[in-house]
Amino acid sequence: MREDANCQWRVAVRPVGKPKPSDFAYTEEAIPEPGDGEILLKTLYLGLAPVMRMYMQGTGAAGEKALGIGDVIHGRGVGEVVTSNHPAFAPGDIVQGQLGWQTYKVSAVTPQEKIFKVADRGVSYALSAGVLAMTGLSAYGGFLDCGQPKAGDLVVVSGAAGGVGSIVVQIAKIMGCHVIGIAGGPEKCAFLRSLGVDETIDYKAEDVPARIAALCPDGLDIYFDNVGGETLAACLENLAMGARVVLCGSISEYTRDAPFGLTNYTRLRAVNGMMKGFFVYNYLDRLDEAVDALAGWIRSGRMQPVQDVIDGFEAMPEALMRLYDGRNVGVQCCRVREHPHDLALEKGEVA
Amino acid sequence: MREDANCQWRVAVRPVGKPKPSDFAYTEEAIPEPGDGEILLKTLYLGLAPVMRMYMQGTGAAGEKALGIGDVIHGRGVGEVVTSNHPAFAPGDIVQGQLGWQTYKVSAVTPQEKIFKVADRGVSYALSAGVLAMTGLSAYGGFLDCGQPKAGDLVVVSGAAGGVGSIVVQIAKIMGCHVIGIAGGPEKCAFLRSLGVDETIDYKAEDVPARIAALCPDGLDIYFDNVGGETLAACLENLAMGARVVLCGSISEYTRDAPFGLTNYTRLRAVNGMMKGFFVYNYLDRLDEAVDALAGWIRSGRMQPVQDVIDGFEAMPEALMRLYDGRNVGVQCCRVREHPHDLALEKGEVA
Repeated sequence: MREDANCQWRVAVRPVGKPKPSDFAYTEEAIPEPGDGEILLKTLYLGLAPVMRMYMQGTGAAGEKALGIGDVIHGRGVGEVVTSNHPAFAPGDIVQGQLGWQTYKVSAVTPQEKIFKVADRGVSYALSAGVLAMTGLSAYGGFLDCGQPKAGDLVVVSGAAGGVGSIVVQIAKIMGCHVIGIAGGPEKCAFLRSLGVDETIDYKAEDVPARIAALCPDGLDIYFDNVGGETLAACLENLAMGARVVLCGSISEYTRDAPFGLTNYTRLRAVNGMMKGFFVYNYLDRLDEAVDALAGWIRSGRMQPVQDVIDGFEAMPEALMRLYDGRNVGVQCCRVREHPHDLALEKGEVA
Repeated sequence: MREDANCQWRVAVRPVGKPKPSDFAYTEEAIPEPGDGEILLKTLYLGLAPVMRMYMQGTGAAGEKALGIGDVIHGRGVGEVVTSNHPAFAPGDIVQGQLGWQTYKVSAVTPQEKIFKVADRGVSYALSAGVLAMTGLSAYGGFLDCGQPKAGDLVVVSGAAGGVGSIVVQIAKIMGCHVIGIAGGPEKCAFLRSLGVDETIDYKAEDVPARIAALCPDGLDIYFDNVGGETLAACLENLAMGARVVLCGSISEYTRDAPFGLTNYTRLRAVNGMMKGFFVYNYLDRLDEAVDALAGWIRSGRMQPVQDVIDGFEAMPEALMRLYDGRNVGVQCCRVREHPHDLALEKGEVA
């Protein structure tokens, strides 16, 4: 990565199936100049999420333009203000927002970029590319608002070792729930147990419907769905009275040839059950609340901030591919540049 | 129908596709004698509902035994106490409860029969086989609890001219909603307009998805689903922010060869939408509240009690077939015997 250029990753071709290296095009441009009211940001961290494959398909980008071939890929992350022609920002300020897959960005701080200042909370700025950003808000808003957890609830989470999932399972434990996490492979299942998850299901080795039925003899109260498809259908077969199914994501469906057809949605009827979806930006007015709560739990040691950090802007395509291969543990994130604040924290120099 | 025998309709064979006359077997038995603590009821009215075809399949009978070939078909209705060995009942009392498809029944008044006394509310006892029984409770509980209607909401109801639907559309109008009713044929659509429905869609003549999209340019707030299948999928494509989909029934799916696969349930995500199902017996603790409210609206003229009454116990199979052909308007009900109270009401002799 050249520091004297704006390095970028663009859509080369629409992905078919899982994303692969040839779907991405690397370009370099001159570092842009901020105009009146604009700021120049340099990228510190970029977050990754499954939806980015949909962006590359030209869909899924609510509030942002649909991407065409050759466009810089959408992505939120953490940046540092280099120069500012905007009264509310000064050089050195840290922000999170829509930076795109690039190493510099000029921003007019438009509402659609959702650029927010990041306070020093005594935790790494890297967390503002995931756990303390939209990933954390998805977990916090989706689980609390749609899931309505109560102490003692039996909660099943799929994609439990992923970005949103690894936060949801920990919030559920803090709320006093009994938590079953579904993830792929013994390492991820062991990791989930280290987060306090009560029971794990390894979808690569076990019969998921049979295990869910066995672990939920009286039905589950909340299913937090990150994967869709057959796992969702299996959970619908095992609902307790008044169960809530939270639709967060459906990564198992994004790369299917034919759409998945849910035949047993009617199972919601017998138990007065509910299936509720959410879109994270609909919770934007709760971002401060979510970040305050999550950062508080992290500082007090009740929550482990789980980010899977890959180094170097060049690794961005690889970082997205990791999500679709299920190789990430926690929020997938790319460290584009180091920042002294975070280096000091790593060395234990800041409380 | 012989008055000196207990006439019954039994499962002859499991229905394949729509129910047909040869699926039913007619039998006569001696009128049973009530034992200690039991009452003998004679049937006045029996209500019909789509679920009865599922009973005949040996499924769907929550709280009742699964029917085998040769069993008397389950069904709730209105009966008059003939003799009573139970302290809480006296000859002449009117009750609603699980009578089955027969003209007499001995009941031990078990909880599973859900036998409740019917007060004289100045309306026909026939209504206690439908509008003021489980059909009305489905409409009242399902729409208010799952739908959470507010004045000004745009409400779409399928099966709108049917038993539950014709009550839901009227409650929605009372709540100040704008109501779109979906029904089959111009007569039913005209009937819906006579109930105050604002817009109608004739599913036999019109392109339902196109009409829903055209009538809901800003999305619908509540979809009350009595049919499932493609109509449900079409409504999911047209949700307003915070929309509620109420799963009541899915008559379009009951006779399909292969189950319907709902591919666009993920539409709930973008709008923080909710799909909530209910089973009417989960609302049993609200039966009195529902009957009070519905009877009040009927007496004040704000609600039209819509029952499609067919005469004679012999017509029971025909009455069920009417539901599956979509021939009924309102709650399908069979008048097994006349009662002086209701004859007087018909002649206007009772206020």
